[in-house]
Amino acid sequence: MRIAIIGTGVVGRTLAGALQRLGHDVVVGTRNPTETAKREEWATAHVPLRPLGTAAAGADLVVNATNGLASVAALGQVGSEHLAGKVLLDVANPLDFSQGFPPTLGVKDTDSLAEQIQRAFPEARVVKALNTVTASVMVNPAALGDGDTTIFAAGDDSEALQAVVGVLRELGWQDIVELDGLHNARGLEMWMGLWVRLMGALGKPDFNVKLVR
Amino acid sequence: MRIAIIGTGVVGRTLAGALQRLGHDVVVGTRNPTETAKREEWATAHVPLRPLGTAAAGADLVVNATNGLASVAALGQVGSEHLAGKVLLDVANPLDFSQGFPPTLGVKDTDSLAEQIQRAFPEARVVKALNTVTASVMVNPAALGDGDTTIFAAGDDSEALQAVVGVLRELGWQDIVELDGLHNARGLEMWMGLWVRLMGALGKPDFNVKLVR
Repeated sequence: MRIAIIGTGVVGRTLAGALQRLGHDVVVGTRNPTETAKREEWATAHVPLRPLGTAAAGADLVVNATNGLASVAALGQVGSEHLAGKVLLDVANPLDFSQGFPPTLGVKDTDSLAEQIQRAFPEARVVKALNTVTASVMVNPAALGDGDTTIFAAGDDSEALQAVVGVLRELGWQDIVELDGLHNARGLEMWMGLWVRLMGALGKPDFNVKLVR
Repeated sequence: MRIAIIGTGVVGRTLAGALQRLGHDVVVGTRNPTETAKREEWATAHVPLRPLGTAAAGADLVVNATNGLASVAALGQVGSEHLAGKVLLDVANPLDFSQGFPPTLGVKDTDSLAEQIQRAFPEARVVKALNTVTASVMVNPAALGDGDTTIFAAGDDSEALQAVVGVLRELGWQDIVELDGLHNARGLEMWMGLWVRLMGALGKPDFNVKLVR
């Protein structure tokens, strides 16, 4: 699959590397590829860096791995014409650290970042997933509980949801809970309220939950 | 232990029965014991019903099992003088169903019901716990995953927190995550945002998570 990762932080880099190793045709979109390429972590990465619009233009799947509070603006720079019809996997969290740690959610619980993105880019097919775990767990679920922990995916477009579920399976996820309707992203983002506090209590970000039902 | 349960809904009745079976001296506080006793579910219960203040006055542990949006008012009827110095276990969730299902949280994520209660009754020793699961699971963790799922407890007063942890162990909880600081109740209440949606997706409330770390 042709995949464009938007965002050059730890999440974007981790996903880009893992998806490339799975055999996908991965590019990373950034405002200024020349500048990004100078950063040590990207100088040693083997993923092509492309301007934002160019990266998304050739992709089947676009991944939003930008800072959640800046995602709508960043995707605006990608361009709605390059997102139209695409599966847009939103893995970001709208965490507001302006008052310190733990962060608050930058959206009220009658909305979600994923829905904001969907409203801003109505022709994209937005799916929320992977935002409930840290980057290293996203791409290596086997590292926790013999791989038997749970990941969630929410979306309005069932074909797009299934495309994302397929990618999750490739990454090694076995227990995937599909939530019908992008509004369920509110719950996935609210989970962060407990996640950040557990990270503080456990002293590490590499943990997850197994849904026992 | 002398335990007063405040609230006559499913949660209050379930906790009262279970704690009584464990050998505790349990009473249930209600505005009007005579009226409550006429309700079929209480007519057949073997737990003493007492006026709110009377119930709490003789208790070591007071459990808030009232509707979360009305908890501060209900505890006000219990009376701050009857809560002073007591361990106050808050199991309620401030769920606002006024816009239908799924409910929203009635508090912003810079606050929590547990902290509102603590501010309203500064001499009580508030601990948040058990709000993350449905009533039947609260008192019977063995029903899920061979009993190996996770429960959380948050509080400022370490002695009160340990008292609650003791009760959780008696109820059968083995994996108890203690969160130091009542502000962590924000995370425990925000979990409801995902919980209510999982209940919708699973079609049942009897589920929980195992924290895998």
